[in-house]
Amino acid sequence: MQFKLTHQAGRARAGQLTLRHGRIATTPLFMPVGTQAAVKTLDSRDLEELGVEAILSNAYHLYLRPGEDLVAAAGGLHGFMRWPGVIITDSGGYQVFSLSDFRTLKPDRVEFVSHLDGSRHVFTPEANMVLQHRLGADIIMALDVCVAYPAPVEEVRQSVELTTQWARLCRETHERLGGEQALFGIVQGGVIPAARQRSAREITDLDFPGYGIGGLSVGEGPELMNAMLDILDPLLPPERPRYLMGVGTPENLWDAVSRGIDMFDCAMPTRLARNGTLFTSQGRLVVKNAAYARDESPPDPDCACPLCRQYSRAYLRHLFNTREISALRLSTLHNLSFMLNLTRFIRESIQGGEFQRAREAFLSKYRSGDRPE
Amino acid sequence: MQFKLTHQAGRARAGQLTLRHGRIATTPLFMPVGTQAAVKTLDSRDLEELGVEAILSNAYHLYLRPGEDLVAAAGGLHGFMRWPGVIITDSGGYQVFSLSDFRTLKPDRVEFVSHLDGSRHVFTPEANMVLQHRLGADIIMALDVCVAYPAPVEEVRQSVELTTQWARLCRETHERLGGEQALFGIVQGGVIPAARQRSAREITDLDFPGYGIGGLSVGEGPELMNAMLDILDPLLPPERPRYLMGVGTPENLWDAVSRGIDMFDCAMPTRLARNGTLFTSQGRLVVKNAAYARDESPPDPDCACPLCRQYSRAYLRHLFNTREISALRLSTLHNLSFMLNLTRFIRESIQGGEFQRAREAFLSKYRSGDRPE
Repeated sequence: MQFKLTHQAGRARAGQLTLRHGRIATTPLFMPVGTQAAVKTLDSRDLEELGVEAILSNAYHLYLRPGEDLVAAAGGLHGFMRWPGVIITDSGGYQVFSLSDFRTLKPDRVEFVSHLDGSRHVFTPEANMVLQHRLGADIIMALDVCVAYPAPVEEVRQSVELTTQWARLCRETHERLGGEQALFGIVQGGVIPAARQRSAREITDLDFPGYGIGGLSVGEGPELMNAMLDILDPLLPPERPRYLMGVGTPENLWDAVSRGIDMFDCAMPTRLARNGTLFTSQGRLVVKNAAYARDESPPDPDCACPLCRQYSRAYLRHLFNTREISALRLSTLHNLSFMLNLTRFIRESIQGGEFQRAREAFLSKYRSGDRPE
Repeated sequence: MQFKLTHQAGRARAGQLTLRHGRIATTPLFMPVGTQAAVKTLDSRDLEELGVEAILSNAYHLYLRPGEDLVAAAGGLHGFMRWPGVIITDSGGYQVFSLSDFRTLKPDRVEFVSHLDGSRHVFTPEANMVLQHRLGADIIMALDVCVAYPAPVEEVRQSVELTTQWARLCRETHERLGGEQALFGIVQGGVIPAARQRSAREITDLDFPGYGIGGLSVGEGPELMNAMLDILDPLLPPERPRYLMGVGTPENLWDAVSRGIDMFDCAMPTRLARNGTLFTSQGRLVVKNAAYARDESPPDPDCACPLCRQYSRAYLRHLFNTREISALRLSTLHNLSFMLNLTRFIRESIQGGEFQRAREAFLSKYRSGDRPE
């Protein structure tokens, strides 16, 4: 993997990731989430039409269903889902923590039960690397240990220690397995500055080609998240990509890019879409509201996505009201289109040296619609 | 409306319907069902890409939700769903009969409760014409009276009588309302030959530009259905299009076209798709079967639809197993593509004077897969 920074504006960065097979993704990068080897409601052709460069899938989910053997037999995730772009897999550390009803953390492994059928499973750092190698993503993530928010200091300290130990084991296994995937380390530490600093130092000491920032956007709010990003910025090597995992809203993106973040993934835009909430240039629009029953204007008049090019708010509202699943799909196309356009706009503002002005212009309009974020 | 018969092969016919605004549909014609102003899982752009020429929507459903006022305000169904092709609305007579938990048939009206919320409603032939005029389809259907299968002779007789009376009232109202929509009469009569003959004579005496055949494919089986079509063929004016409502399977299509039928609609191909059953050149394929877990071949190797061009049986099965709604959409695209290709193949076989040979070749292969129809 190569990462080339091409432009900077303050701490905001624009660059390009080059991965194996010549796959390219430009940063700042927003990645739709395809947990189960599919971005919900869409297929790979839709992703190409949207201009998606990279997606995030998940080793926990794919391990449980359909299993890595089956994915490997199809030529890995790219072959299985016929998606030629960049794929990242998360290790599933977060899902073991958040989805399993029962899990036991040991120094060398986490035992958990499947959220699907209650069957018992174990992830070790070594086995998780084998799993992610077989799934075949371009970038894979180290197995980390997550904590809830808020969490006692002692628990945060333990998660940082284990995350470092496991990151070392992941790196060793990854090197032994060979291949051209890029392995990113993950910085934990909750919202405790000393823990974040320690985790950043320990993980960067292991020298990964890129760094994930985990354990944020879990309820701590934008002020605390931004404070953690401010703490991390000088501790992360500037020449390596920084991936803020599970973030975020349009406002989060501006905040994080201004603090040196390069990569994002978030299930929220697609989840909101399926619930009938659309991002627009003037803020969120809840299309099920009765106010739109006869509104013949497109959901976002500033948008040229497949939804806004063709359909009215009234028709989309009708599709939601009659439980047509095309409503979920059209809204997903729109919200992803919005996030991708926003990321492109941010990138161009960095390239043009107008990041701050663009940020203010966007947010001023985005907040003008009087629709709470 | 103009209907031009261009080719015949035995009793099989190929032709062309020209509707207002120059909208054209070729026959034999298979129409996907868009009950609620949407073909389930798809949008209008998908229909254009599939080469769909006409769809069937439903006045009962649209009357209840979103209501004809709202559709009329959007410029009718074409404007509401942004679909430039041909639209037919069924009157909803069948839905009043099949969906409502409670209905009362009177000589001049049917009273029914909404299957959505139990509210009480009335359809008269006159009001139903006003409703369908406001919905704005290119072809509208007379309000008919349906019976269950099997039904007592006396009930069938009553349904034929009322269907004729109402057809007359529909025609009078339609003429008074003016406009360029084409109103089709509907022949009822269950599976009782004398009742079918009487209904055909009475309805054709009213001189409609086209004729629906209702009350078939309701459990009577292909032999009885074909027998009824044989009875009707000499009674229906040859220069008018004949629309066999709610039919059918690939085998039904060959059977009915060979008996002089021009138009079809059926929800079954899309419903089967959503349940994971695909039409293929070698019969039906139940993609959820464990046998396909690692099958990297396309669902139908003979098919060039968006599903078969890009994805494997293994991947589609995974999408169904993980409840991804893209599975429903991709399967729907496939089954509609199959039905449209089949209709085109039948049409070309009539044009080429090879209907019988094409029918045998298709059915021989279709039945070779050892997959029960």
